[in-house]
Amino acid sequence: MTDDLLPDALWPLFPPGLVWLVGAGPGDPGLMTLHGLNALRQADVVVYDALVDERILAWRRPGAGLEYAGKRGGKPSPKQRSISLRLIDLAQSGARVLRLKGGDPFVFGRGGEEAQTLVEAGIPFRVTPGITAGIGGLAYAGIPATHRDANQCVTFVTGHDQHGLAPAALDWAALAQGSPVIVLYMAIKHLDQIAARLMAAGRRGGEPVAVVTNASRPDMRVLETTLATAAADVTAAGLRPPAIICIGEVVRLRQSLDWMAQLAGVPPRALDPLATRGRSESA
Amino acid sequence: MTDDLLPDALWPLFPPGLVWLVGAGPGDPGLMTLHGLNALRQADVVVYDALVDERILAWRRPGAGLEYAGKRGGKPSPKQRSISLRLIDLAQSGARVLRLKGGDPFVFGRGGEEAQTLVEAGIPFRVTPGITAGIGGLAYAGIPATHRDANQCVTFVTGHDQHGLAPAALDWAALAQGSPVIVLYMAIKHLDQIAARLMAAGRRGGEPVAVVTNASRPDMRVLETTLATAAADVTAAGLRPPAIICIGEVVRLRQSLDWMAQLAGVPPRALDPLATRGRSESA
Repeated sequence: MTDDLLPDALWPLFPPGLVWLVGAGPGDPGLMTLHGLNALRQADVVVYDALVDERILAWRRPGAGLEYAGKRGGKPSPKQRSISLRLIDLAQSGARVLRLKGGDPFVFGRGGEEAQTLVEAGIPFRVTPGITAGIGGLAYAGIPATHRDANQCVTFVTGHDQHGLAPAALDWAALAQGSPVIVLYMAIKHLDQIAARLMAAGRRGGEPVAVVTNASRPDMRVLETTLATAAADVTAAGLRPPAIICIGEVVRLRQSLDWMAQLAGVPPRALDPLATRGRSESA
Repeated sequence: MTDDLLPDALWPLFPPGLVWLVGAGPGDPGLMTLHGLNALRQADVVVYDALVDERILAWRRPGAGLEYAGKRGGKPSPKQRSISLRLIDLAQSGARVLRLKGGDPFVFGRGGEEAQTLVEAGIPFRVTPGITAGIGGLAYAGIPATHRDANQCVTFVTGHDQHGLAPAALDWAALAQGSPVIVLYMAIKHLDQIAARLMAAGRRGGEPVAVVTNASRPDMRVLETTLATAAADVTAAGLRPPAIICIGEVVRLRQSLDWMAQLAGVPPRALDPLATRGRSESA
C-alpha cells in the first residue's frame, strides 16, 4: 500500500508462487475489502470472473497481467478444471496469482473446489472473503436479509446445480416450512418451478418477492412482486441475470428502507411495513 | 480519500446530518470495505458496537468522536431504542454520524430496526454492508459455507431471540431436513438444546461441527467436534462468545483448506475429505 492503513503484520505481502483467492463483492467497487485491494496492488496476474467490475480490475499494479475466466455474453466458458490448472501453472512459474471472483468465493462460487486443486498440487494459497450479493446486494435494494420482527433464520440457495438444472436435490418442502426468508442465487431461469414447489409446500402465493438484477451496480433494477406472479413478472419486465431473488416478509421493508431512492429525494412509501413498530425496539 | 481509488461519483461524500450504517466485518481490519473506510475518514462521530476492532476505529478522522453502544464484558448494554435515539440526536445536531457494527448490519445485526427509526424521524441514511462472520469467519477457519459436492443451500440462524432464549419460534425439524449446512450465530449458550433438537429430527450425532471463536482475529480458535459432543466439548475447551458454529459436511473441508495453518507450515490433513474429487470439476 502507498499509505499506512495497516501495520505490516496485518497487511500481508503477496509472495511469488502463491494464489490469493479474493471475493470482489457484488459489483460496487466500494464494496471491495482492503485485503482485496492490497492483493490487487501486488499481484503479477489477475485471473478474474465475469461480474468483477472493470473499475476494480483497474486498481491492479501497472503491468500486471489480466486473464478472463468466466462466462459473459455468448462466449464459451472455460471448464472449471482448466481454470484450476491455469492457476497452478501460473503459480508454478513464480507469479503472484490473484484469483478474483464476484461476490464471495465460498458462497456458490466454487472457490472451495479451486482451493482443493491448489492443495493437491502443493500450491500455497490465501483466502479473502467478499460481500455476497445475497446480503450486500439486497441491502442496496433496501432489503435486510434478516429483521428481528420477521425472521430468525435465512437460507441461501443456488438456483441451478452441476448440470444447470433446477436443484432437484433440494427438499423444497422442508425449506418452505423451515425458512421464512429464502434468497435465491442464479435462479431466474427456474423461478417458475421453484415458486411452484414452494407454493405446493404451503407458501402463500401473495408472499412478497424481490428480484434484484445487477445488484449494487449503476444499472441495478429491483422488481417487487409476489411468489405467484414472480416468474411471469420477470419475463414481462425482461429481467436478465445476474439476479438475486429474495422471498419473504423482509421484502416489505423496502417500502421503508429504500435508502438509495430516499437519498435521491423519493419519500418512503411506508413507515411500518411489517406493522410491528409498536412492539419492537423494546430491548 | 487521500488517494484517487474511486472517481467522485463512486466515493460518496458524507453530508452533515446523515447517518451512515456500516458493517465492519468479523474482526480482521483488512475485511473492512473501501466504502467503510471512506465513511470513517469523513465521520464526525463514530457510534460503534462491541466486536468492532480498535484498529478499525483508529482510522477515523483525527478529532472525530467515538461513542460505544454495545455489550462487552459485564457492562450493561444500552437499550436498542436509546441507541437509535442517540443516532437521531447526533444527526439532528448536524453531525456526520457513522454507525459502525460488527459483521453485516442486516444479518442479525438489528440494522433494519435502527434504519426504520431513522426513517420515522426523517433522518437521511446510507447503508454499506460488511462481511458476515458466518461466511468470512468460516473462511478464515478453512471452511467454505457452500461446496458443490456438499450443499446447494446454507441456512444462517441466530441462537437467541428477543428474550435471549433459544429460538423456540424456529422449526428445527424442517431446518434439519432442508438445510444440509446450518450456521449458528450467538449460539454457544444454547448449543446443547439446538443440537438435541437437530438430532431428534434425524441429524446424525456424528455429523461434523466446527465452533469458531473470535473468527478472523489474532485470538481465533477453532474446535472441530460433532453434533453429539459439541456442547460438552465447548464447555471442556472453555470457549466463550463471540462464536460462529457450523454444522454440516463442509466442516470436513477444513482438513484440506485450512490455509492459515498451511501458510504457517502445517501440511493438510487430507486432500479429499469429502471423497468426491474423482467426480468433481467435471464442468
